[in-house]
Amino acid sequence: MNIPKKIELIEVGPRDGLQNEPKAISTASKKELIRQLADAGFSRMETAAFVSPKWVPQMADADEISQFCNDLGITYIALTPNLKALERAIQANVPQIAVFIGASSTFNQKNINKTTDESLLETEKMFRLAKEQGIFTRAYVSMSFACPYQGNVSFEELNYVCRRFVELGADEIDIGDTNGYANPKIVYDRFARLKDLYPDTVFVGHFHDTRKMALANTLAAMQAGIDKFDSSIGGLGGCPFSPGATGNLATEEVALMLSEMGVETGLKLEEISKIVPFAKSLSSRLQPV
Amino acid sequence: MNIPKKIELIEVGPRDGLQNEPKAISTASKKELIRQLADAGFSRMETAAFVSPKWVPQMADADEISQFCNDLGITYIALTPNLKALERAIQANVPQIAVFIGASSTFNQKNINKTTDESLLETEKMFRLAKEQGIFTRAYVSMSFACPYQGNVSFEELNYVCRRFVELGADEIDIGDTNGYANPKIVYDRFARLKDLYPDTVFVGHFHDTRKMALANTLAAMQAGIDKFDSSIGGLGGCPFSPGATGNLATEEVALMLSEMGVETGLKLEEISKIVPFAKSLSSRLQPV
Repeated sequence: MNIPKKIELIEVGPRDGLQNEPKAISTASKKELIRQLADAGFSRMETAAFVSPKWVPQMADADEISQFCNDLGITYIALTPNLKALERAIQANVPQIAVFIGASSTFNQKNINKTTDESLLETEKMFRLAKEQGIFTRAYVSMSFACPYQGNVSFEELNYVCRRFVELGADEIDIGDTNGYANPKIVYDRFARLKDLYPDTVFVGHFHDTRKMALANTLAAMQAGIDKFDSSIGGLGGCPFSPGATGNLATEEVALMLSEMGVETGLKLEEISKIVPFAKSLSSRLQPV
Repeated sequence: MNIPKKIELIEVGPRDGLQNEPKAISTASKKELIRQLADAGFSRMETAAFVSPKWVPQMADADEISQFCNDLGITYIALTPNLKALERAIQANVPQIAVFIGASSTFNQKNINKTTDESLLETEKMFRLAKEQGIFTRAYVSMSFACPYQGNVSFEELNYVCRRFVELGADEIDIGDTNGYANPKIVYDRFARLKDLYPDTVFVGHFHDTRKMALANTLAAMQAGIDKFDSSIGGLGGCPFSPGATGNLATEEVALMLSEMGVETGLKLEEISKIVPFAKSLSSRLQPV
């Protein structure tokens, strides 16, 4: 079994996990979560989104959270869906930004009311500006395997967005199974093809556990040589625009599997398990255990 | 990704899943469960255990259930822990029997109060008698990866029992991760070594989802060429002698994964999902969904 010796887990709970949580979460609680995650060994986290507080009230404290992360001295990613958001992120001294585009055109139209090409045009401007500022760029491809509106997403659709992200110089491309519809075979096949087409590009796996396959999908992607994965403490998260897409890959589950397999992550398992009840207490969907 | 084109799932819910359920389950409910599973396409199930009703009241109806399975015309397995049990199974016209021995001596001593060699001696007699009667023999190795009493179980311990089972002519050897402590790497390694040592032996994978790795472990075993797996409808089951060993690999989860991967199982997914609420309603641990 050919798998990477070392894996980077990128904790996305504070942003992806909490962004659409209906229960109000105080900025103090978020800071506490981020601090605990940093103590558990995460070298990189996704912590904020520069989005309209009107649409996403949970992320209204993006400036304060970014300031906190800067003071804490951690590397973090902030979601910036458009140029205006990027400008706010630059003001906040954010070191890494993330943009996202669906592999499915239907999803883009319904989710962000733009065609794929319109989104890519804005991304081009954003990446140029980000690079001028020395900001690391993460490019998410949402719905890389299937889409709740159109069903299956073809490799050609996925590759169309990936190729443009490569051309635009994304520092890493994050392949998202946003609604949890991937299976280990398609995961292996798509990552192997992408690695073959773009050998110099860094790819990240982002899985949801909607159908309980997140760990098996992670294993399959590892076998295709992928060594970076997003995960969310306590399995926080889901996508409100994607019916049924509850539950990111849980950090504690993937960290345990990797540790048991002898794969290095640099994480402290005991510290991680201590954070889980607190993380779950922030969610209205999950029960603290 | 090199995986079998066809997989046999052996449904163990009616026996392994219900055996230690504290809630009383009527014989009628068990028959209904078996009938529904047969309708969903299972060609083989584990349905009964010939054990003392004093110790395992849930299996007191082994004779009646076996008669029902004979009338239904399905192939089924009955657990027979000793010669006396085998004689009862012969009387009941059981087509397949299963014995079990732990790879961990500590487990054998604590669980069945016999050393590994004492157990193997009884197995030898049982297999001889079963073969005379034309009965198919399944040999379970419990605690093939780790044991709640002694911790890690070495490959040598596992192989000691497997080698004897091969010598005794077991028709299939079922490698059980009874307490859910395996990980995909050790699963792949051990199955690959066993297949290499005993190329003509049929091995079965039996995983528990205690640490959420059951599907990933199944995927790993498939890559080592294993094409038979036990699963339990609704994830019924667990092992009362093994602290924390709740939850067999859920039939509906593994059947979905295999179907999505294009692996043939001969099962009807829709029928399976319809059985899940009923199966869970029989358990005091699981909530019907």
